[in-house]
Amino acid sequence: MTQLYSQRVARLLEAMTVHGLEAVILLPGPNMLYYTGLSFHLMGRPTLAVFTPDMAPLLFVGDLERAKAEGCSLAPQVVTYGEDMASRQAAFKEVEKRIGLSRRRTGVEPLRMRWMEQQALLEASPGVRLTSAEEALEPLRAVKSADELASIERAIEIAESALQAFVPSVRAGVTERDLASELSLQLLRAGSEPELPFFPIVASGPNAALPHAVPTLRRLQRGDLLIVDWGATVEGLISDLTRTFSLGDVEPEFQRIHNIVAEANAAGRNAVQPGAPCRAVDHAARAVIEAAGYGPAFLHRTGHGIGLEAHEPPYLRSDNEARLAEGMTFTVEPGIYLEGRGGVRIEDNLVVTPQGGRTLSHLPRDLVSLG
Amino acid sequence: MTQLYSQRVARLLEAMTVHGLEAVILLPGPNMLYYTGLSFHLMGRPTLAVFTPDMAPLLFVGDLERAKAEGCSLAPQVVTYGEDMASRQAAFKEVEKRIGLSRRRTGVEPLRMRWMEQQALLEASPGVRLTSAEEALEPLRAVKSADELASIERAIEIAESALQAFVPSVRAGVTERDLASELSLQLLRAGSEPELPFFPIVASGPNAALPHAVPTLRRLQRGDLLIVDWGATVEGLISDLTRTFSLGDVEPEFQRIHNIVAEANAAGRNAVQPGAPCRAVDHAARAVIEAAGYGPAFLHRTGHGIGLEAHEPPYLRSDNEARLAEGMTFTVEPGIYLEGRGGVRIEDNLVVTPQGGRTLSHLPRDLVSLG
Repeated sequence: MTQLYSQRVARLLEAMTVHGLEAVILLPGPNMLYYTGLSFHLMGRPTLAVFTPDMAPLLFVGDLERAKAEGCSLAPQVVTYGEDMASRQAAFKEVEKRIGLSRRRTGVEPLRMRWMEQQALLEASPGVRLTSAEEALEPLRAVKSADELASIERAIEIAESALQAFVPSVRAGVTERDLASELSLQLLRAGSEPELPFFPIVASGPNAALPHAVPTLRRLQRGDLLIVDWGATVEGLISDLTRTFSLGDVEPEFQRIHNIVAEANAAGRNAVQPGAPCRAVDHAARAVIEAAGYGPAFLHRTGHGIGLEAHEPPYLRSDNEARLAEGMTFTVEPGIYLEGRGGVRIEDNLVVTPQGGRTLSHLPRDLVSLG
Repeated sequence: MTQLYSQRVARLLEAMTVHGLEAVILLPGPNMLYYTGLSFHLMGRPTLAVFTPDMAPLLFVGDLERAKAEGCSLAPQVVTYGEDMASRQAAFKEVEKRIGLSRRRTGVEPLRMRWMEQQALLEASPGVRLTSAEEALEPLRAVKSADELASIERAIEIAESALQAFVPSVRAGVTERDLASELSLQLLRAGSEPELPFFPIVASGPNAALPHAVPTLRRLQRGDLLIVDWGATVEGLISDLTRTFSLGDVEPEFQRIHNIVAEANAAGRNAVQPGAPCRAVDHAARAVIEAAGYGPAFLHRTGHGIGLEAHEPPYLRSDNEARLAEGMTFTVEPGIYLEGRGGVRIEDNLVVTPQGGRTLSHLPRDLVSLG
């Protein structure tokens, strides 16, 4: 494991050179985990990992995390602070003294770096030039190793077996929220690590028209469409699947849009090729839905990468020219949403192989009636 | 419910006036939920709620969230954007056109506002003066209503009954991670909402010396101390408890530090009074541990507020002069950590009443031997 992290850091330092970064600051989350092996929560106390080409990685943590930081296999410098604000400010000055961030072009994570850390850095290191490290960081994690792929495949197996155990609980009269709890429970029982990639989406009836619905107290009714979007975690790596069910008989248009989405899902999966631009997969899926007259009802991109995060590059978006490469893992998840009535989404997980996309998820993609 | 949110927004606007803020921007999370009733995840797509004294609240969301935003009871203005970056930039310009952020002193959440949103705001609203809205936002959520307190009490009941169901699974040979899964499962079964306040901490042996331990594959051994830190969610409000167990007989010092921590816990709880400074509770608990000679081994503050977040004001910290008020809810959780050997923490949840602190959690506080 020691070697794993130092190899990853070596690749990060190379990418920093390419992108002209003289330091990179990571906050708790998947990048910090990927490069240091350390799992911290992003909370009120600032926690930073600072990488520079010319010195050992620096970990900046509260006193109570000192032992954990010193246990990091990268042999880091560790700077800690106490619970009072004066001690915290002094520790940020100590980082400046050791690293000289005020003289460095410093990359940060645009979706992680917060106002709090940024203000503390600007105060302690007045000249620091902060910029996005996204282009240096993103490509490194997108291509998965054989070990990482094996964990994702296991996370898919667990998710699929949890769904099968969950399905008997679905019936008219049960609330979305109770079903989401039941599915979480089945995911843990099937072997997911307890930190699920995201809280399952169970969206019924009109709520199924909201792509990011949060489970509510609505009770399922006969004639509903039901979208279930769920995933499992193995070794920190995740799966992310969606299937749509019906509660008994549904109106004919619901069956029709389900057929269209299933066809769009297949078209998207078939368009995956190493070297293809991300937009080609989006285009293939979207073309099916547009040809059927539902283009404006497909509200989102066709897919996103999966790994240590439930949303990470590559993003399968109509304007993304980035190219797919062997070993990338992502979702293909077209949908049609009819406001106030219902919706359909069918989401699978794939890996890019030399022969094209290999679909890793195997649950049936037809409209199954439950309850 | 309509009235609930508009009343909360009215109080926010008053606090903005007091603190000289001409706009406040909230990101997905507890503040957005508290003031708008909307629950979004903080992900790659920017989602903002903008409050100003002189116009309707503005919600800035991706196209796929339009229906959800328009359903908000505050009758908001809604600005949406599509999946491509150009559309997103145009939408930020539309916000500037409507609100004129570039002319406003604008408060942000220091622990939520990210580099990504900040850069987009600075680009679309060049003169905007961003500042922390913490002092305007923090006091409003700290004092709980009767309904909020009832949810917290229910979250404590659920957590306590889940622990009782979990305890028979604890025995030598089981991994920390399996136990954390089992406890998560029992929390859901006992009636917690599926979005747990945090993933349970199960820390055994030397890992119990790490206050924020993440459950590992370490197997419990006889002679271990075992720290379990867990909570439940009801109506979005949370509980946060800790108990320490032993696996069979432990060395005499472990029993001794457990007695000291139990005494410190009681001293902290007894020091709670409306009008007392937060530091007084920290002082009362810390004095017991210092008098016993373990002062440097109590690595963290004595407690933190609980509500929509597992860590929120009031913070019971040695340098916090802020005063407790009736209706505030928080933890009291002293601990002693012996590096490389083990640790003890005992955490209860309290509410401030006119008569002093009322302890809401009731599990025994002695060192129970399991397995």
